Amino acid sequence: MKDYDENEYFSSDLSNRERATFEIGIKLGALYHLISGVPVSSDKKVIESIEKGFEASISCQPYVKSVKLKILQDKIEGNKSTELDYDEINGEKIKAVVTIEYKSIKVVAKIEWIEKLKYPLMFIEKIEEL
Amino acid sequence: MKDYDENEYFSSDLSNRERATFEIGIKLGALYHLISGVPVSSDKKVIESIEKGFEASISCQPYVKSVKLKILQDKIEGNKSTELDYDEINGEKIKAVVTIEYKSIKVVAKIEWIEKLKYPLMFIEKIEEL
Amino acid sequence: MKDYDENEYFSSDLSNRERATFEIGIKLGALYHLISGVPVSSDKKVIESIEKGFEASISCQPYVKSVKLKILQDKIEGNKSTELDYDEINGEKIKAVVTIEYKSIKVVAKIEWIEKLKYPLMFIEKIEEL
Amino acid sequence: MKDYDENEYFSSDLSNRERATFEIGIKLGALYHLISGVPVSSDKKVIESIEKGFEASISCQPYVKSVKLKILQDKIEGNKSTELDYDEINGEKIKAVVTIEYKSIKVVAKIEWIEKLKYPLMFIEKIEEL
Repeated sequence: MKDYDENEYFSSDLSNRERATFEIGIKLGALYHLISGVPVSSDKKVIESIEKGFEASISCQPYVKSVKLKILQDKIEGNKSTELDYDEINGEKIKAVVTIEYKSIKVVAKIEWIEKLKYPLMFIEKIEEL
Repeated sequence: MKDYDENEYFSSDLSNRERATFEIGIKLGALYHLISGVPVSSDKKVIESIEKGFEASISCQPYVKSVKLKILQDKIEGNKSTELDYDEINGEKIKAVVTIEYKSIKVVAKIEWIEKLKYPLMFIEKIEEL
Repeated sequence: MKDYDENEYFSSDLSNRERATFEIGIKLGALYHLISGVPVSSDKKVIESIEKGFEASISCQPYVKSVKLKILQDKIEGNKSTELDYDEINGEKIKAVVTIEYKSIKVVAKIEWIEKLKYPLMFIEKIEEL
Repeated sequence: MKDYDENEYFSSDLSNRERATFEIGIKLGALYHLISGVPVSSDKKVIESIEKGFEASISCQPYVKSVKLKILQDKIEGNKSTELDYDEINGEKIKAVVTIEYKSIKVVAKIEWIEKLKYPLMFIEKIEEL
């Protein structure tokens, strides 16, 4: 077991809430860029395997309590009817919800394609004291 | 279903064997760079979920018949005893076997860390006419 | 030009400081996972080209004011003396400083390998009201 | 300098041409998945910096003689008129040409979006004995 205190590296006037939103930002940025370009088909089993793989991976990161990734099957084109008939994951094709707890602060944040912004928005849905 | 013939884009003097080794090279390069940097812990369930996720994904690519990915548990440091106690996947920590069939040619290729080369070698183990 | 207000998606009790630390967390997570596994040699020109490429890329993201990436030449093994003699970027081999401004809040954050933690720490060095 | 012979790991009945097409396949797969999801704007300087960064990186890989990457400016939406106004690289927005030499064999291969296939095709344009 590592013995550490990473907190000494942080600006001392940072609140726990500020630290918690920083931590969850890291996770969303990581998840998004790990999954971009990953090959996928519309097959339910393929989708679920990829979802579970990235959920397990991001759950290893600091302060993560849960990760829920949805690859949006109706946005995936390609069911392997031919060799080239498959798709790639990008920001239009996923929804994710990540929950972290840093000290007494719990944060829930999301990645979601917002059609009117034409943008895969990362946003904080809830922040609360436990 | 897409109607296509991608073969017209290829050099006309390319043999089926040459095309098949090209195709499997693409898959190894893709798998390797998709998985590099992915967070992981030594937990068996985490490892298996990530393995299955990437196996499902690479299996979507053209001409792939099977993908077997092993994340080498004994090379993974970090069992989440603390928040920072986890690891990242790189070429020293995986073994992969990919099989493709292009027309009548079957190719089996691997990614494996070769200690004496200090290198995550991608190599063709077998090529045969079906 | 897109007309948008992404702020409506965020929890309404989020302060500008909390939002700013969230935004910079995203950028560090993105940079880190984009650059993990990228091939590199110890050649100064190669290193500088890769640094500038990722600096330019991350600078496109929302609220980023500056990005400085250093690939640590003395940590890079491989000068292409043979075909296999090159390296890959990972968290031990980089330093990065990112500055963002969200409304009146300026945040400076870093990615740096901390030897005693054996960890590529992402941390907020400074947060201030402009 | 590393002393090595990686060839012993390869199937002994592999021709130099087959090995060469394998090697260039790896490079295309690597380049494609390294660059997928990379943030970009339509600014010429940003585009050129990213192009040069990945050209330098892929040039480190075994047997590579040259790499030319074009990010297609007219396909990139977003000139940073607002914070969210930028784009991400994917297979529709690039052209790449990679040349390798393995022993006496030279291979030129490309990545190019083929509109009628709706696919970012990787293909071998030329293979020749030097």
